Amino acid sequence: MALIVQKYGGTSVGTTERIKNVARRVAKWHARGDQIVVVVSAMAGETNRLIGLAKEVQAHPDSRELDQMVSTGEQVSIGLLAMALMDLGHKARSYTGSQVRILTDNAYTKARILGIDENRIRRDLDEGYIVVVAGFQGVDECGNITTLGRGGSDTTGVALAAALKADECQIYTDVDGVYTTDPRIVPEARRLKTITFEEMLEMASLGSKVLQIRSVEFAGKYKVKLRVLSSFEEEGEGTLITFEEDTDMEQAIISGIAFNRDEAKLTVQGVPDRPGIAYQILGPIADANIDVDMIVQNVGHDGMTDLSFTVHRNDFQKAMGILKNQVAPHIGARDVTGDANIAKVSVVGVGMRSHVGIASQTFRTLAEEGINIQMISTSEIKISVVVEDKYMELAVRVLHKAFELDQAA
Amino acid sequence: MALIVQKYGGTSVGTTERIKNVARRVAKWHARGDQIVVVVSAMAGETNRLIGLAKEVQAHPDSRELDQMVSTGEQVSIGLLAMALMDLGHKARSYTGSQVRILTDNAYTKARILGIDENRIRRDLDEGYIVVVAGFQGVDECGNITTLGRGGSDTTGVALAAALKADECQIYTDVDGVYTTDPRIVPEARRLKTITFEEMLEMASLGSKVLQIRSVEFAGKYKVKLRVLSSFEEEGEGTLITFEEDTDMEQAIISGIAFNRDEAKLTVQGVPDRPGIAYQILGPIADANIDVDMIVQNVGHDGMTDLSFTVHRNDFQKAMGILKNQVAPHIGARDVTGDANIAKVSVVGVGMRSHVGIASQTFRTLAEEGINIQMISTSEIKISVVVEDKYMELAVRVLHKAFELDQAA
Repeated sequence: MALIVQKYGGTSVGTTERIKNVARRVAKWHARGDQIVVVVSAMAGETNRLIGLAKEVQAHPDSRELDQMVSTGEQVSIGLLAMALMDLGHKARSYTGSQVRILTDNAYTKARILGIDENRIRRDLDEGYIVVVAGFQGVDECGNITTLGRGGSDTTGVALAAALKADECQIYTDVDGVYTTDPRIVPEARRLKTITFEEMLEMASLGSKVLQIRSVEFAGKYKVKLRVLSSFEEEGEGTLITFEEDTDMEQAIISGIAFNRDEAKLTVQGVPDRPGIAYQILGPIADANIDVDMIVQNVGHDGMTDLSFTVHRNDFQKAMGILKNQVAPHIGARDVTGDANIAKVSVVGVGMRSHVGIASQTFRTLAEEGINIQMISTSEIKISVVVEDKYMELAVRVLHKAFELDQAA
Repeated sequence: MALIVQKYGGTSVGTTERIKNVARRVAKWHARGDQIVVVVSAMAGETNRLIGLAKEVQAHPDSRELDQMVSTGEQVSIGLLAMALMDLGHKARSYTGSQVRILTDNAYTKARILGIDENRIRRDLDEGYIVVVAGFQGVDECGNITTLGRGGSDTTGVALAAALKADECQIYTDVDGVYTTDPRIVPEARRLKTITFEEMLEMASLGSKVLQIRSVEFAGKYKVKLRVLSSFEEEGEGTLITFEEDTDMEQAIISGIAFNRDEAKLTVQGVPDRPGIAYQILGPIADANIDVDMIVQNVGHDGMTDLSFTVHRNDFQKAMGILKNQVAPHIGARDVTGDANIAKVSVVGVGMRSHVGIASQTFRTLAEEGINIQMISTSEIKISVVVEDKYMELAVRVLHKAFELDQAA
């Protein structure tokens, strides 16, 4: 008998028909003798409908009141799923985040989980109930309802799995696992049977939409065994996210090619090459609440250097304004340039730690296609390059082929 | 400075535009210096939408889970109204029944309020907040969400007014007060400036849809000053529901004509006229959870009598079955007859206690129109008659005129 936490997203519970399908799947596991906790999101579209209502009333909705009303989306799903399970003859009981007592801080709309009281759930499980929990929400210590931010249902699932010491946390989505890259761009993309947490973090933050990044961090921190599965396919083992130390199988060198075209790059040219200059440039950017992704600074010459970085495309104009009007005059930079027509392409894989030549193969592959590399940034398990926007798909395809990701592992 | 509880029903908060109108009205009272607690229902149609979803999943929805999801209707309204109030520059904060702590028993879908913790609300009021509370819902001692049944938002309003010792509880509806009868049947029907609790109870239970009967009982028990007002008219003082002992004004003899066509009558004929026979007939009906309204038994002769009673029309066939198959053979009754094509018409007024002749005037008025009276039942402040369904409107009109209810008091 295993204790399994399953999480179903909004698309999986988007209609009452689909909720019944989820119930049948959950019931099958339960009938096998497993103890099951199910975490569900709001029915697809419901959260946006509620936010829309709020904005009709208040242009910038008060965050406490927004959480109060938006949290109802999951409260409806859990009731419906519990009913569907009972209709199949199983004992089931639903809980809101507040009823479980998923305690969070009071940062409305983006709260963080501080603790979970798992006693009530464990008692129900021991009495044979399937327990259905609302994802995405919690309660602060004063009893105010909070939400964890978009994608927070994944985090709820992982946090519950950690609190209950579950054998596995299964995340059911509309894809059947994590792929070597987006199949819409490379039809030969393959589903990975396993991926390490570190790789998953790089893949997620680099634009793979499969799992919310915070849930992966959470799973890594509490060593929760996480599996991504399709809620629309009956069979299939999905992708298991492993701890590197756990794995004894022959690890592929490269796991996938990630990409992101939501960024823009900025360059401050001709700045004095002296200590503190990076802070003087990036401090005002951080103060304006702009997240910076890649940062590249090369060796200077003649006492001058250039510093480039990327930000989300939505923050591009704001960042340019800060650099031109505030930073450049202050530090005496020669010029500020920027470009929003860029894309980031990343080669990800823990295997590259022990394999030389991954970087040079990446660069050669792109050069052979005449794709100019504008920026390079590397970590232990990934190589990211910035290229002109229009070359993104081509770059992903040729790299996917070059690293033989279309070949069965 | 007064402390006022205002309750707005589903139609009053049916759209975001209407919610903004409610906010403007509440804000006006608040700006006058009053402390305001607002109780709101779900947006019109929302509760039925949620029940519809539930029935798509489970033909007879589990009552705990139904309350879990149906209670979200008000949770959305309170968030929206609090936002609308903030948008007008007022401090506002919303609470679900669970957050206030409106403690109820655990009779899901028809829970009764056991107690209210008013401390949090009082603190907010003292800090200048307008407090918005979800009607219709509470929480049991285990933290399960409960609902009070249809119309329960009125009860929430009255219970909060009682707990807070409010100066007045104002119920805003889509009518501007309590009328002498339904203006759709008698266009000359007049709005009553005052009505006593006892009369209101008779009027409510007899089919006037203005206030939920339990809220009136509650108000009577805790001596809450209750006023019914229109949420769509800016001015107007509505109808004040008074305690008879409070009133020093000249009381009208008759306050109104109520009616109800949702009933059916059943008669057990030729039963032995001996002690315990009423129990032997009505016991099995009560055991089947069928509510009985009027019960009439006349003096018997030759040791035999007839017993008639009325039930809700939905329970008619079930009650007939019990009488025919179970009761009649057991007690040796001659026959069981029934008729669903009936209506009940009631003349209501505390004044009839001290005025003779109200009953005879009622019977004469109906006789003059050739309307046959099938059953009669009286209390201290009302006379009810059962007539054939098709005569109901006529009976209401002629009685309204006979008691001069169209004349200004």
